[in-house]
Amino acid sequence: MRCVGVADTTFARVDMARFVVEELEKHLPGYRIVRHTVPGIKDLPGAAKRLLDMGCEGVITLGWVGAKEVDKLSYLAASTGLIILQVLTGRIVIDVTVHEDEAESEEELAAIAEDRARKHARNLAKMLREGLEALTPWAGMGLRQGGPDVGPITRR
Amino acid sequence: MRCVGVADTTFARVDMARFVVEELEKHLPGYRIVRHTVPGIKDLPGAAKRLLDMGCEGVITLGWVGAKEVDKLSYLAASTGLIILQVLTGRIVIDVTVHEDEAESEEELAAIAEDRARKHARNLAKMLREGLEALTPWAGMGLRQGGPDVGPITRR
Amino acid sequence: MRCVGVADTTFARVDMARFVVEELEKHLPGYRIVRHTVPGIKDLPGAAKRLLDMGCEGVITLGWVGAKEVDKLSYLAASTGLIILQVLTGRIVIDVTVHEDEAESEEELAAIAEDRARKHARNLAKMLREGLEALTPWAGMGLRQGGPDVGPITRR
Amino acid sequence: MRCVGVADTTFARVDMARFVVEELEKHLPGYRIVRHTVPGIKDLPGAAKRLLDMGCEGVITLGWVGAKEVDKLSYLAASTGLIILQVLTGRIVIDVTVHEDEAESEEELAAIAEDRARKHARNLAKMLREGLEALTPWAGMGLRQGGPDVGPITRR
Amino acid sequence: MRCVGVADTTFARVDMARFVVEELEKHLPGYRIVRHTVPGIKDLPGAAKRLLDMGCEGVITLGWVGAKEVDKLSYLAASTGLIILQVLTGRIVIDVTVHEDEAESEEELAAIAEDRARKHARNLAKMLREGLEALTPWAGMGLRQGGPDVGPITRR
Repeated sequence: MRCVGVADTTFARVDMARFVVEELEKHLPGYRIVRHTVPGIKDLPGAAKRLLDMGCEGVITLGWVGAKEVDKLSYLAASTGLIILQVLTGRIVIDVTVHEDEAESEEELAAIAEDRARKHARNLAKMLREGLEALTPWAGMGLRQGGPDVGPITRR
Repeated sequence: MRCVGVADTTFARVDMARFVVEELEKHLPGYRIVRHTVPGIKDLPGAAKRLLDMGCEGVITLGWVGAKEVDKLSYLAASTGLIILQVLTGRIVIDVTVHEDEAESEEELAAIAEDRARKHARNLAKMLREGLEALTPWAGMGLRQGGPDVGPITRR
Repeated sequence: MRCVGVADTTFARVDMARFVVEELEKHLPGYRIVRHTVPGIKDLPGAAKRLLDMGCEGVITLGWVGAKEVDKLSYLAASTGLIILQVLTGRIVIDVTVHEDEAESEEELAAIAEDRARKHARNLAKMLREGLEALTPWAGMGLRQGGPDVGPITRR
Repeated sequence: MRCVGVADTTFARVDMARFVVEELEKHLPGYRIVRHTVPGIKDLPGAAKRLLDMGCEGVITLGWVGAKEVDKLSYLAASTGLIILQVLTGRIVIDVTVHEDEAESEEELAAIAEDRARKHARNLAKMLREGLEALTPWAGMGLRQGGPDVGPITRR
Repeated sequence: MRCVGVADTTFARVDMARFVVEELEKHLPGYRIVRHTVPGIKDLPGAAKRLLDMGCEGVITLGWVGAKEVDKLSYLAASTGLIILQVLTGRIVIDVTVHEDEAESEEELAAIAEDRARKHARNLAKMLREGLEALTPWAGMGLRQGGPDVGPITRR
C-alpha cells in the first residue's frame, strides 16, 4: 500500500497535522498516512528520514519557529537538513514552517498555520499524484501559503 | 543488550547527564546507558556518531553554548552536524542545548538545564519504547523544555 | 535522447521558465527539455536531483527570494543544497535567483528576472555543448546576469 | 605504529603545533605524530581528512580566525566541515581555534593560543588512551581552554 | 600525465587564472593545467568536482564576491561546498577569494587579486610536489595572501 508521511512537533502551538491529514485523506485516496511526532524543528529531518525509510513516497514536515535569533539558527540548521535529505534521496519533502514573529496576534498565527498546512498538503498530494509538472500551470504565479497569493508581476 | 547513549561536555557548567541518567534508568529499564564526554559542543556530533556505531538505538546530547556571536556560529555548526547524522542514519539523536544568555542568573540557568535535560530524556525514552507516534498525543500542544509549557493556541 | 532540466517555483512572481525554454530550444537543439515545478526555493535542490536522476545532463533552477531575514536564511539553505548536489554528482546545476529587494519597482524586478534567466540559460547551453572551457574567453571579464556587465578592472 | 595527526596553518600568528607536539610526545608515548600544514582555516577539514586516511586515530586542528565578518563566515564553513568529517568517520578531530578579536593585546592572544593548544592536546591524548569516558569525571565542570576554568554552577 | 585544475568565473573582474597558470607552469613542470570557467562563485564547487573527477591531483578555485549581504551568504554556501568536497575526497582544493569590499579602489583590488592568486598557486604547487609538510616551515608565521605577511606574534 502506498504511503505518505506527516512529521510534526510538540513544540508547535497549532495542531497543523489535523488539517494536513484532512487534506491528504481527501486528495490522496488509497494512501496510508503515517504520522510521526518529535519534540522540535531540529528533529524533523531525522523524522522525515525514518518515514522515507518506511517506504513513504513523500513527507510533509510541520515546523514551528520561535522569535529569537537562536531560533532562526535552528531554523537554518533544520532547513539545511531537510534539503540534504532530499538531495540524497530525490524524494519530495514539503516543509511547512510557521515563525512566531510573522503575525501580530495568536489568532492570526493560527490562521496562517492552517492556511499554510492545508495548501502545502494539497501541493504534496498533487505532486505525488501527477508528477513533475503537476504545479507547472502555476509556475511564476506568485502563490503564497499562509496568506493570499500575490500574483504574477505584469510588465507594462 | 539494548543500549542508549548520553554525550556531554566538560564545557557545560551543569552536570546534566546526572539528571538524564536518572530518567533513563527509570524510563528505559533493561537498557545499558553508555556515556561519552567530549570537550565542547562542536565535538558532540562525532560523539553521537561513535555511540550509534557502538549499537546505541538513540542518543541524547547535552550542549552548553556561550553568549558571544562566535558561540552562536559554533551552535549552528554543531546543530547542522547533529541533523546530518540523523539524516544519514535515521536514528534518534535528541539535542539538549542550554544557552548562557537565556537566563538572568546562574540559579535560573541551572534550573533550565535540569528541566530541559529531564524532559528530553523522557522524550527519548518514550520514542524508543513506543515508536513513531509516541509523542503524537502532544503534537501542536506548545510543550517547552527548560520552562513551563506554553500550550496550544485556541482560535475563538 | 539528451535532456536538460528546468526547475522553477509557484512562489516566483515572474514565469522565468518561459524565457529559459526559449533560449534552450534555440541553443540546445536536439535536447529534450524537462520541466519540474515546486512550491518554493527550498524545494529546488530536491527537484534538481529528480531531474538529474531522470538522466538530464544539466539543470537550471529558477528561484525567487523574499526580502525578510528568514527568506535570506532559506536562500542560504537552498544554495547550500544545490551546491552539495553538484559536489556529489559533478553535474552542472545553474542557479538563477531573484531577490525581491534588489529592485525598486516590480517593473525593474521583472526586467532583472528575464535578463538573468536568459543569460544563464545561454551559459548552461554553452557549457553543455562546448565543455569545461566554454566560458573561458570571458573569465574575469565582470559579466553580470540581471543587468549590464561591469567589465574587467584595468590596472593603470 | 599508531599515529596521531596535527594540522595547522601558515595564517596563524602563533606556532601552536610546537606546544601540541610537546604535549602529545609526553602523553601519547609510542604514537607517531604526523604534521600537515595548510594555508588557512578553510583548508583544515581537508587536511584532517588526509591525516585520517593515512591511518591517524585522531587529529588536532589549529585554526586562527581574523576579526572581520567574512572571517567569521569562513570559521562557520570550516567548523561545519570538521564536524561533517567526524560524522562521516566517527574519528576524534579536536578543533582548536583562536579568534584575533578575543584579546586586547598580542601578548594576551599568544597566551590564549598556548593554553588552548596545550589543554586540547591533553584532551585528545586522554580520549585516545582511555576511551569514551576519559573526560567524564569533568563533565559539566565548566572547563575552559585558553583561560582559567569557570567551574560548575552550584544551586543553593 | 599528472594534472592540476584551475576553476574561475566570468563574474570576477580580474583574470586571476592568468597569474595562476604562470605560476603553475613555473612551479609544477610536467603537469597538465586544465582550466574550467563557470559563471559565479556558487558554481565553483561543482567545477572543482569535475576537475578532480578528470584526474586532477589538486585544484585552485578563483572566486570573486560582491559587497552585499546576499553575496556573503553565497560566499558561505560556496565555501561550505568546497570544504565538503575536500572532506569527501581528501584532495587539495585551494580557495582564492577576493571580496569587492576589501579595498578602497579598483587598483588596490586588482593588486590584491594578483598577489593572492600568485601566492596560493605557489602554495598549491608546493603542497603537490612536497607533501604534507611542504608548508610546515611557515606554520604559525602569519603569512597573508593579498597583502604583506603580518608575521608571528612574539611573546616578551
